[in-house]
Amino acid sequence: MRDVAIIGVGLTKFGELWDVSFRQMMIEAGARALEDAKIDGKQIDAMYVGNMSAGQFIRQEHISSLIADHAGLVPIPSTRVEGACASGGLALRQAVIAVASGIHDFVVAAGIEKMTDILSGQATGALATAADQEWEVFVGATFPALYALMARRHMYEFGTTEEQMAMVAVKNHQNACLNPCAQYHTKITVDSVLKSPPVTLPLKLLDCSPITDGAACVILAPAEKARKFTDTPILVAGTGQASDSISLHSRASLTSLRAAREAAKMAYKASGIEPKDVDLAEVHDCFTIAEIIAIEDLGFCKKGEGGKVTQEGETAIGGRIPVNTSGGLKGKGHPVGATGIAQAAEIVQQLRGEAGKRQVKGAEIGLTHNVGGSGGTAVVHIFRRGD
Amino acid sequence: MRDVAIIGVGLTKFGELWDVSFRQMMIEAGARALEDAKIDGKQIDAMYVGNMSAGQFIRQEHISSLIADHAGLVPIPSTRVEGACASGGLALRQAVIAVASGIHDFVVAAGIEKMTDILSGQATGALATAADQEWEVFVGATFPALYALMARRHMYEFGTTEEQMAMVAVKNHQNACLNPCAQYHTKITVDSVLKSPPVTLPLKLLDCSPITDGAACVILAPAEKARKFTDTPILVAGTGQASDSISLHSRASLTSLRAAREAAKMAYKASGIEPKDVDLAEVHDCFTIAEIIAIEDLGFCKKGEGGKVTQEGETAIGGRIPVNTSGGLKGKGHPVGATGIAQAAEIVQQLRGEAGKRQVKGAEIGLTHNVGGSGGTAVVHIFRRGD
Repeated sequence: MRDVAIIGVGLTKFGELWDVSFRQMMIEAGARALEDAKIDGKQIDAMYVGNMSAGQFIRQEHISSLIADHAGLVPIPSTRVEGACASGGLALRQAVIAVASGIHDFVVAAGIEKMTDILSGQATGALATAADQEWEVFVGATFPALYALMARRHMYEFGTTEEQMAMVAVKNHQNACLNPCAQYHTKITVDSVLKSPPVTLPLKLLDCSPITDGAACVILAPAEKARKFTDTPILVAGTGQASDSISLHSRASLTSLRAAREAAKMAYKASGIEPKDVDLAEVHDCFTIAEIIAIEDLGFCKKGEGGKVTQEGETAIGGRIPVNTSGGLKGKGHPVGATGIAQAAEIVQQLRGEAGKRQVKGAEIGLTHNVGGSGGTAVVHIFRRGD
Repeated sequence: MRDVAIIGVGLTKFGELWDVSFRQMMIEAGARALEDAKIDGKQIDAMYVGNMSAGQFIRQEHISSLIADHAGLVPIPSTRVEGACASGGLALRQAVIAVASGIHDFVVAAGIEKMTDILSGQATGALATAADQEWEVFVGATFPALYALMARRHMYEFGTTEEQMAMVAVKNHQNACLNPCAQYHTKITVDSVLKSPPVTLPLKLLDCSPITDGAACVILAPAEKARKFTDTPILVAGTGQASDSISLHSRASLTSLRAAREAAKMAYKASGIEPKDVDLAEVHDCFTIAEIIAIEDLGFCKKGEGGKVTQEGETAIGGRIPVNTSGGLKGKGHPVGATGIAQAAEIVQQLRGEAGKRQVKGAEIGLTHNVGGSGGTAVVHIFRRGD
């Protein structure tokens, strides 16, 4: 197996993009990634696209062909992969496997979701199809409800507070203000989070990531060829993926995601990197409680102390382990299929030293943590600067 | 890269399965494949599932987690791949890459679609999302309409007749009568095809594959470990995948699928096998004209002679190159995400000599041809008996 590097990244602006279509968004992110890598489209050998549900959001399946077509990449193999909100991470992992195995050299890993072309109530319904249709959705559960159960249990077991959860949102909005691509450039306060409208208590509106349009793209190459394109190739040091029961009621614990722990274990083992070596991480904060659980599952703090370390500023830029410097799903926005790729793009920009005002000084090793549904799928990648 | 073998196959009955749910179907096919391979579920390292649109058909995305969960395979990596009706073929190809690369040893490639849980008019609408939503579906095109355009052009360019197309359906229904899993066990005649209700002329009802529920599963292993499980491992000799424009109007030709030709070229090259070496093939006869185009694209006859060789019986069991011995999409049924895997299962059964009354004598090499949409995606696999 060959070492794999990322040689280019590209993103659209994240937000409510009323004047841009699905296909335009993907072309925009893709063109930026090609430019960034200084590679010609003709050199691309294959493409993997993460997308949760264009079928429901814009009545378009078969987007792998649509995108290859509109990007002028026909007849390369183009494959859509889906694992709910982890679709982007899955696309990246398949692309890494394709390059590592030697089947392809230059591979695009992309992610996209156009979520605002249906009524917002319908968006929540479409997203709920990532949960168990027979055992959760049928009886009325939506994603805020499922994560609210996790939050309640985390509060009960570990004394995590609503204020600590709010601090995740405050930090991530603050980081988003430093990210030109982010959906929100609005600072918020703990007080405004606590007073925001209830969604499913204890989760309020500002505990929840938004409905977002966006696309993201990274370009992978064999490490030995990466320096022809860039002086700062970023190596994919490890990749991990795992599954868990799709529904909450089958799990041993509500306060930890087994799939995330297993995926992290796999990625740590593959890379020889330990949690203490990681300089920064992009984690799946679809709800504020999810970031708290994520940093525990990834080994950045002890179980139950995710709220406490957030409160103490350890996950802020300048803290011990900066988390979601991009603004995360909460501040940057969460176009579900694009999120896993956007996370990788942020880590690449950070490890290159190109993250502008949100730069983590001297960052050498970064991690992404991408979750599908309430934890039925998780993908973890670890990246490091090429030597 | 390691050689890869199929060590087990399993299918559900194909048809209108009113009393079986999506998850039950998948478990049934999977359990049969495990039994067939005499492998324990605990040994399975990863899973790829092809599915076109559970989101639209049963309002359930994230089926990768659902299936791993209900199959008791948690926490293995489980990934859904989608390329419209080529989803199954894509799942198989990803599984082959995973085993060939050495990342995993024992990998499940599965495919499933539950299509009858919505009104049949809605099924046609859901299937249409595999075409270009903006340039084809919006103006009223459905898949019968798109393939009718191809049929008209094939008739115009090569003199192909409606009778010749009907003969594809007659042959495939005849084969389906010999396949216990098939949806239809009904012989039809050229006359009954010609007199069946018009769908989009020149295509009549009996030129079209049906709406079907079904699931299929194959289990892959490194070739060097395959003999521990079976005396007749079937090797994956070559795999090919390609894309084309999603919409018909962008193509140079309506009478040939570029993606299929490119995918076939890739698979032939990888395997060192030529069209004349192939003993039998399962091809994507979503409409009768599609089989005629397929056998031309695959090099089994000269361009334009697909109708003629069908008429002459060359593609029948006992003919020069038996095509769709399973009954094909027309007779066996077409649960879209399952089709690519079911094709592989048929070839495995034939190459093992276990195809019962539809057995092609002395079959050593078989091919599968799986198409997404009107040809935006194609996947070709070539299989041969292990030495």
